Amino acid sequence: MGGDTTNGFNRPAYSDEESRVMHYFAEQAEACGLHHRFDEIGNLIIETPGSFAQWIETGSHVDTVPGGGNYDGLAGIVAGFEAIKHIVASPPLLKQGLRLRIWRGEESAAFGIASIGSRAAFGTLPDSSLCMSCRGKTLSEAMIEQHADPEIIKQAKSVIHSDELDNISAYIEMHIEQGKVLEAEALDIGIVTAIRGSRRSWVSLSGTFDHSGATPMGSLYRQDCNLAMAYMHVRLNELLQKSNSNGSNLVQTIGLINNHTEMNEKLGMNRNAVSKVSGTACFSFEVRGCDADELAAYSKQAATIIKATAAEFGVHPVIETFSDQSGIPALNQQIQQHTLQACQSLDLSQMSMPSGAWHDAGTVAQQKKKNGNHIPVGMIFIPCRDGISHSPDEYATAEAIAKGTSVLATTILQLSR
Amino acid sequence: MGGDTTNGFNRPAYSDEESRVMHYFAEQAEACGLHHRFDEIGNLIIETPGSFAQWIETGSHVDTVPGGGNYDGLAGIVAGFEAIKHIVASPPLLKQGLRLRIWRGEESAAFGIASIGSRAAFGTLPDSSLCMSCRGKTLSEAMIEQHADPEIIKQAKSVIHSDELDNISAYIEMHIEQGKVLEAEALDIGIVTAIRGSRRSWVSLSGTFDHSGATPMGSLYRQDCNLAMAYMHVRLNELLQKSNSNGSNLVQTIGLINNHTEMNEKLGMNRNAVSKVSGTACFSFEVRGCDADELAAYSKQAATIIKATAAEFGVHPVIETFSDQSGIPALNQQIQQHTLQACQSLDLSQMSMPSGAWHDAGTVAQQKKKNGNHIPVGMIFIPCRDGISHSPDEYATAEAIAKGTSVLATTILQLSR
Repeated sequence: MGGDTTNGFNRPAYSDEESRVMHYFAEQAEACGLHHRFDEIGNLIIETPGSFAQWIETGSHVDTVPGGGNYDGLAGIVAGFEAIKHIVASPPLLKQGLRLRIWRGEESAAFGIASIGSRAAFGTLPDSSLCMSCRGKTLSEAMIEQHADPEIIKQAKSVIHSDELDNISAYIEMHIEQGKVLEAEALDIGIVTAIRGSRRSWVSLSGTFDHSGATPMGSLYRQDCNLAMAYMHVRLNELLQKSNSNGSNLVQTIGLINNHTEMNEKLGMNRNAVSKVSGTACFSFEVRGCDADELAAYSKQAATIIKATAAEFGVHPVIETFSDQSGIPALNQQIQQHTLQACQSLDLSQMSMPSGAWHDAGTVAQQKKKNGNHIPVGMIFIPCRDGISHSPDEYATAEAIAKGTSVLATTILQLSR
Repeated sequence: MGGDTTNGFNRPAYSDEESRVMHYFAEQAEACGLHHRFDEIGNLIIETPGSFAQWIETGSHVDTVPGGGNYDGLAGIVAGFEAIKHIVASPPLLKQGLRLRIWRGEESAAFGIASIGSRAAFGTLPDSSLCMSCRGKTLSEAMIEQHADPEIIKQAKSVIHSDELDNISAYIEMHIEQGKVLEAEALDIGIVTAIRGSRRSWVSLSGTFDHSGATPMGSLYRQDCNLAMAYMHVRLNELLQKSNSNGSNLVQTIGLINNHTEMNEKLGMNRNAVSKVSGTACFSFEVRGCDADELAAYSKQAATIIKATAAEFGVHPVIETFSDQSGIPALNQQIQQHTLQACQSLDLSQMSMPSGAWHDAGTVAQQKKKNGNHIPVGMIFIPCRDGISHSPDEYATAEAIAKGTSVLATTILQLSR
């Protein structure tokens, strides 16, 4: 629903398309005797009937980026639904309730905010989010259209009450890897150890525009931003290699160079020319890591390198951090252990790996119970073709999804005992 | 005329503004007893009356880039005019005639072609130039409007007849340096030894767009164009330093990175994002040198580095050379010697230096006489503030222009004896 595999899928956060998929699952739940309800945020909850002291949860999202794939999020929902259906259908009687959460708006593509549904459900979404716009509607307006209540966000109210939260014994999300590691290593399952946070900055440089022919080489004559930037990137890459070989687990990406419309306008980037020494340059600098302290310490070292290199080339650097999202340094060890055992019992190959991308599971893992303990959270990755995601080319085989579903179901079963 | 020092000057090639300045000098010539004529190309020639076996020429241009300065070109015209006026006014009688050439359209900014007037006068401007457009007019149309004859270009006819060419004993052009060397060295005069040619290419890279969080570091997983590009730029800078320390005299500039509208569109540059490994990148690569063989040999080495680095990072490089303009490896030694003596006799400090930019003097230096010898050409540079040119901030002091004019006049006088 909401697209096809040629042009991609369009199911933005709080759209009719997103709701349609949710209603489909609600009907399916009905058909096989599972209960369902929408919370005030518009998330769909499907659960086993009956009252339980403890609940094992799974979940993911059904929204997509514009022209995205049909597996990011949805594969986890299908897996969760099938796992619960399968367990419920097979005796013995359940010791814990099973619950599937279909979160709204995980993708930041629509309103510029990630994990809207899960963060809002736990009362941690800033109310400034309600003013963010997508397709001419604010989040607030879009929520009302989909019968959700923006007031809950305004009041920072959690729709998952503290007793309900306390009774979540585990939350496990299956998701496509969105990377190439499992495919490259020819493995069936990734057991997620941690979720990377990210720190994103703009680094802008100002030097001097000069005639490219009449200006001799060397920093005495040239304050060349593009050249200074090249040295920064090489040195930052060397810093990262050194950090990782000393035990860090970071990835670093310079995704945009001199081609961000807003920054280019601000810096007067169009003054650069083929036959001029570049007087301005700008790049995005993203570092991702699971451990917030590690990320902060690394960012400090990176800034030192940027400033020292700028000084060497006589250019002036400005570093503006525009996003700083903490990761989850460690997912629950016991769940990882059960997932490993599930893989072994099913004869599936696996590896432990961090999640490079953020997921709703991260939001859940951030929540604390009354006793101060976090909700125990695990994640299961399945391979996707060429690691491609957020694209019509996104694809995971039915076999890979089936394997992931079996591991999810087996892990849930083991946890429920 | 054609602007002011706040917003810059606008006297494009073959515009009314350019013609107006030429007519001003024609009137000035009239007023002090010098002859003047326009050639069929529209260049203005001012000369001493009488018939001479040999002529010493000076010249430059009066057109500007959009929003340019009032010194690039025009300072040389004023100096040439004053030098001739001064020499003519002082006995003894001239042994050689003196001639000032005010060339049309030296700047490539208007029609995308440099030195239109001088190249056309010698019959070396390709006739394809006539179709180039500026402000909604082709060069052909703009020429006709300024009473010049595009047919001459179509026929590749030289308006400077071979006898006239043979009788040019020397051509000397004074020009602002358009660089910072004289100012930095606190010198009055640059004696130009050679004129740099340039070779300009686009280097485009294609790799793989990947999720910046989910894709591990290293070229096994990442075919990162932006990172490969940084290593290229650092290695090219090292290659240049090595070449120059081994005796080359080259300058190298990477002026544009990922921000050339046409190339960006072609490569789909907008697919890059902050949170993606960059799957495409593009940069302009310009090398300038006086010696064509040196330039060609260096460009080959540079291409090897680009290709090797691309292979190392798993990205695919395409190098397209879009402009290859030969330099003048050596200006006339005797003229340089006379200029040096002129500086010494006037007690002015000087240094020998190549010209980084192209000038009409380069076009003249390319022309051969019937005996196979080139026209002897010299150039005199004067300092300009902060090396700035092609900008409203372009500025040379009256004192600097006066010193340059004295050196020009003294050199011409010495040559005429």
